[in-house]
Amino acid sequence: MRFKLTIEYDGRNFVGWQWQENGFSVQQALEEAIKKFCGEAIRVYCAGRTDSGVHALGQVCHIDLERPTDPYILANALNAHLRPHAAAITRAEVVDEDFHARISAKKRVYRYRIINRRAPLTIDHGFAWRITVPLDTEAMHDAAQALLGKHDFTSFRAQRCQADSPVRTLDRLDVVRDGEEIFITAEARSFLHHQIRNFVGTLKLVGEGKWTRADVEAALTACDRAAAGPTAPPEGLYFVEVVY
Amino acid sequence: MRFKLTIEYDGRNFVGWQWQENGFSVQQALEEAIKKFCGEAIRVYCAGRTDSGVHALGQVCHIDLERPTDPYILANALNAHLRPHAAAITRAEVVDEDFHARISAKKRVYRYRIINRRAPLTIDHGFAWRITVPLDTEAMHDAAQALLGKHDFTSFRAQRCQADSPVRTLDRLDVVRDGEEIFITAEARSFLHHQIRNFVGTLKLVGEGKWTRADVEAALTACDRAAAGPTAPPEGLYFVEVVY
Repeated sequence: MRFKLTIEYDGRNFVGWQWQENGFSVQQALEEAIKKFCGEAIRVYCAGRTDSGVHALGQVCHIDLERPTDPYILANALNAHLRPHAAAITRAEVVDEDFHARISAKKRVYRYRIINRRAPLTIDHGFAWRITVPLDTEAMHDAAQALLGKHDFTSFRAQRCQADSPVRTLDRLDVVRDGEEIFITAEARSFLHHQIRNFVGTLKLVGEGKWTRADVEAALTACDRAAAGPTAPPEGLYFVEVVY
Repeated sequence: MRFKLTIEYDGRNFVGWQWQENGFSVQQALEEAIKKFCGEAIRVYCAGRTDSGVHALGQVCHIDLERPTDPYILANALNAHLRPHAAAITRAEVVDEDFHARISAKKRVYRYRIINRRAPLTIDHGFAWRITVPLDTEAMHDAAQALLGKHDFTSFRAQRCQADSPVRTLDRLDVVRDGEEIFITAEARSFLHHQIRNFVGTLKLVGEGKWTRADVEAALTACDRAAAGPTAPPEGLYFVEVVY
């Protein structure tokens, strides 16, 4: 019996999605909770592996269980076993056997949160990137539009990215300001490793007035990681939703 | 020279605003930061003392400094000295000597945040009250309107409240739902100790269908703390703004 699980987590508490030698991952938390629930040692498959410090509001994964289980009971039981880790199943559904959390995904939505102010963060510490230089969000949004469409995104791809191809189709990259908060929303069928954080680090240069839209276009065309801006820190990034 | 300081803090990290024997307070953090900055041991006066666990987005206080100081430099210096405590000066202004953070306040705005869902909180742990029973927010909002105006609020006042009079004038008590989040906004010139948390604990009974608007009216009229609902937990409460 296959289940689709929607998961929320506080990225500060994990070394990222995937099992790591050097710390506790979301995957480990979840697989251990499942084992406590039904005794089965099973593998969890997710829609997108997030890095250490990156948060999820709507990560999705699928699991196969031997025994028929009510999804509502499954969610409650896993949440009980996940304690005290800062991860929770917000939804559980029975799905067809051909559903695959990663392969079946048609669209992934990420949001990056910047707080643009002088004062250090208190409540939002670990949940946003504080940038003290006033950012021109209209210029950032305009430059972001140059990245839309199907491109070789080598310039925005982590060196250690394991994807077969650097070509992706970016459907949305919006930059919106709400007071001192800036939200950058990115949508695509799939993303390369660090792609969004590298977009954000590059758009910051535009917001500060150091780069123009033409500089962003040139960075994209260069197909060279060194041509684009630095990688934004993980704590501003949220994996928001997967559309199937 | 008198300064008005606007302060943000994460209530989880403090025993509340005021100096306490049993832990570290926001007031202590601030007075120690001021002493490090200018060597002066001065007293900080705030607009409203918050309890342990209660957050502030726009707490206000005033201080008097011997030496003339640029407010921008003051804010940056205090923020440097406040580290690593989760409190920050978001604004500093020079004000007249007759300004008093508590006495001059014309309106105080608080917001209480509920997350109404089954799943445990992860990112919002410590920043909202999770209520698993579905709440009828329209009924809560309607009942809240029965509390508006000038009343003896003894039923919603902590036993240890030190105010001279239990009479207050409540200007606003809105209950608004946004998806699984519920925001309760309260505005008045001043509030009694625990008044908002006791409002919220009472309105929860209405949201669950256990109480009607008439029950809330009867609780108010009783002028007896035992007649109203329980005190909501501190972690959902935010001191948002003070209007002068």
